[in-house]
Amino acid sequence: MSRFAVLGGGGFLGVNLCRFLLQAGHEVTSFGRSMPFQRVLAGCECIEGDYRDQAAVGRAIHRADVVFHLISDSTPQAANADMVMDIENNLVPTVSLLKTCAETGIRRVIFISSGGTVYGRVQSIPIHEDAPIEPITAYGVTKVSIEKYLAIFEYLHGLDYRVVRLANPYGPFQRSAKGQGVIAAFVERIVDNRPLEIWGDGNVVRDYIFVDDAMEALVAAANDTSSHRVFNVGSGIGHSLNDLVRELESLLGRPLKVAYRQGRPVDVPVNVLAIQRARDVLGWAPRTDMRQGLEATLGWASSWMAQGVTV
Amino acid sequence: MSRFAVLGGGGFLGVNLCRFLLQAGHEVTSFGRSMPFQRVLAGCECIEGDYRDQAAVGRAIHRADVVFHLISDSTPQAANADMVMDIENNLVPTVSLLKTCAETGIRRVIFISSGGTVYGRVQSIPIHEDAPIEPITAYGVTKVSIEKYLAIFEYLHGLDYRVVRLANPYGPFQRSAKGQGVIAAFVERIVDNRPLEIWGDGNVVRDYIFVDDAMEALVAAANDTSSHRVFNVGSGIGHSLNDLVRELESLLGRPLKVAYRQGRPVDVPVNVLAIQRARDVLGWAPRTDMRQGLEATLGWASSWMAQGVTV
Repeated sequence: MSRFAVLGGGGFLGVNLCRFLLQAGHEVTSFGRSMPFQRVLAGCECIEGDYRDQAAVGRAIHRADVVFHLISDSTPQAANADMVMDIENNLVPTVSLLKTCAETGIRRVIFISSGGTVYGRVQSIPIHEDAPIEPITAYGVTKVSIEKYLAIFEYLHGLDYRVVRLANPYGPFQRSAKGQGVIAAFVERIVDNRPLEIWGDGNVVRDYIFVDDAMEALVAAANDTSSHRVFNVGSGIGHSLNDLVRELESLLGRPLKVAYRQGRPVDVPVNVLAIQRARDVLGWAPRTDMRQGLEATLGWASSWMAQGVTV
Repeated sequence: MSRFAVLGGGGFLGVNLCRFLLQAGHEVTSFGRSMPFQRVLAGCECIEGDYRDQAAVGRAIHRADVVFHLISDSTPQAANADMVMDIENNLVPTVSLLKTCAETGIRRVIFISSGGTVYGRVQSIPIHEDAPIEPITAYGVTKVSIEKYLAIFEYLHGLDYRVVRLANPYGPFQRSAKGQGVIAAFVERIVDNRPLEIWGDGNVVRDYIFVDDAMEALVAAANDTSSHRVFNVGSGIGHSLNDLVRELESLLGRPLKVAYRQGRPVDVPVNVLAIQRARDVLGWAPRTDMRQGLEATLGWASSWMAQGVTV
C-alpha cells in the first residue's frame, strides 16, 4: 500500500484515478477546486482548495509517497486567448509545487502532460516520444515547460518523476461543460437529444483512449523502475470525428444529426501516439476498443443524467 | 534605413547593438532599466523603463520595424534560486511584449536565446540547432519557452521572428558586476590586479564569441529571408577556462594567479555550437579570433577603468 496525493482530484481524470487507487487498497488524498463527485470516493480524503494556495497544496501532499499532478486550469482555446493567465495559473503554481515536493521528500511526481498538443503539427504518425516538440497552442507550451522543470528538479534536487503524455482520454465523469473532450460533448447531446457539433469537416484525427486504460498506465508509471522519464499513453489508433459519429450511430442503431462549424486554429489535423515505449517498458497495453469505450460512456451519461446531474 | 527598437538596450549586448545599428545609419530606440553607457549612443532615442511596464514597452516599440529582444533579467544561478521570479520577470513580460508586437504590426522580432543553456548536457559537440533541448537550469527553460511562444505568435498572428541562440559573448561593455561573462570577470581582475577565480577545475569548455561578430549575426538575422527560424551563433570553437587563462598570460607576457573554487551544478561540462546554418543561410561568419577579441576587451576595460568607471 502506498500513499498517493491526486492534485486535480475533482476533475474527470482525478475522480477516475482516485477510484482506481482506492479500489486497489491505497490511501488517497484528493485535492481540487471542487469535488463534484465526492460521493463516489468513499474512503478518500478530499481537500478543496486553490492550486495557487501553496499552503493548501502542501497540506494535501505532506503525507504522500507519490504525487499525481493532473491539474490543468485551462484549455487550448483559453490558454491562447490569455497566455499570461495560463502561465500564472498553471506554470507558476506547478513550479511552486515541485519546490514543495522536493522539500517534503516526495518519492515521485507523475505529471499528466498532453500528447495531443506538445508535438504540434507532425510530419508523420504515430508520434514517438522523441519527435520534435512544436506546440501550436500556449496550452502545449505550458505542458512542455512543466516537463522541463521536472527534469531540472530531478537534476538539482533528486526529485524523481515520470511524464505521461496522454492522448485524448474519454469515459465516465468527463463533462462537456468544462470544455473537455469531444466524446463527452457528443454523448451529452445524444442523451439530451440535440444535434452533435463538429468544428471543421470532421476529418480531424485523434487518438482516443478510454479512461480505465489511461489509469492503468498512470499507476504503471508510478511503479516504473526504468531510466525513462516520458511515456506516450494513448490507444495508438487514430479515429476521425466522422468515425466517432459512425461508431455511435452503429451503437445506437439510428442516424445522428451533425452540425458542422468552422474549424479552429488550435486543432492540429492529426494526432496519433506511438505507444511502444509504454508497452515495452511499463508492460502496459490499452484493453478497451472504441466501441466498448463509447458504450460504457453512453451508459454512464444516461444513468447520471437520469439522476438529474449535469454531466 | 530601418527603424529598430532594442529592448535591453542598456546592457552589454544592447549597447553594442545600438552602436552597430547607429553606425550603419539606422534609427534606433533603446529601452532598458538603466542606460549606463548612454554617452556612447549619440543619436539614439533612449527610454528608461521597467520591462514589466507594458505601456512603457509599447512606447519604445511603436515606431519600430524590427524589435530586438535582448532583455534577460536573470542569470542561470538566480533563475534556479527563484524560478517563479524568473518566470514573472522574463517569461510573462515577453508574452505581453509579443502580444503588443502583433497588435502594433511589428515586422519582425529577433530574440536572443541562449546557445549555452538551452541544450543542456549534450552527447556530442558541436551542437546543431536540432539537437535535443534539455536545459539543466530554469534560465534555459525560460529561453526555450519564449522560443515556443514566438512560434505560436507567428502561427496565430503572423508575427515574423528569428531566434539567435547565442554562445558566450564577450567584449567591450560587458560588466562582471552583473554576473555576466567569465571573460569580463577575468579582465576586470587583471586590470584591478586581483587573482582570477575559476569555478571547478578549469576544464569546462565554452564557445566564446566576440561581440562584434555576434552583432553582425543579429543584423543578418534581421534581414534573413529564409524559412529558418533558429540560428546558432558562436565561434564554433571550444575553449576551456584554462585555455583562456593561458591566452591572457601570453597576451600580457606574464603569469596570472588563479584561485580555483568548487564547481557549480548550473555549469554543463562542455558547450560548442555548430554554426553551419548561420554560415550557409545568413552568409555570416565570425571574424575575430580569441587573441584579437581578448586584446580588444582588455584595451576597453583598461581605458574605462582608468576613467574611474566600474566595469
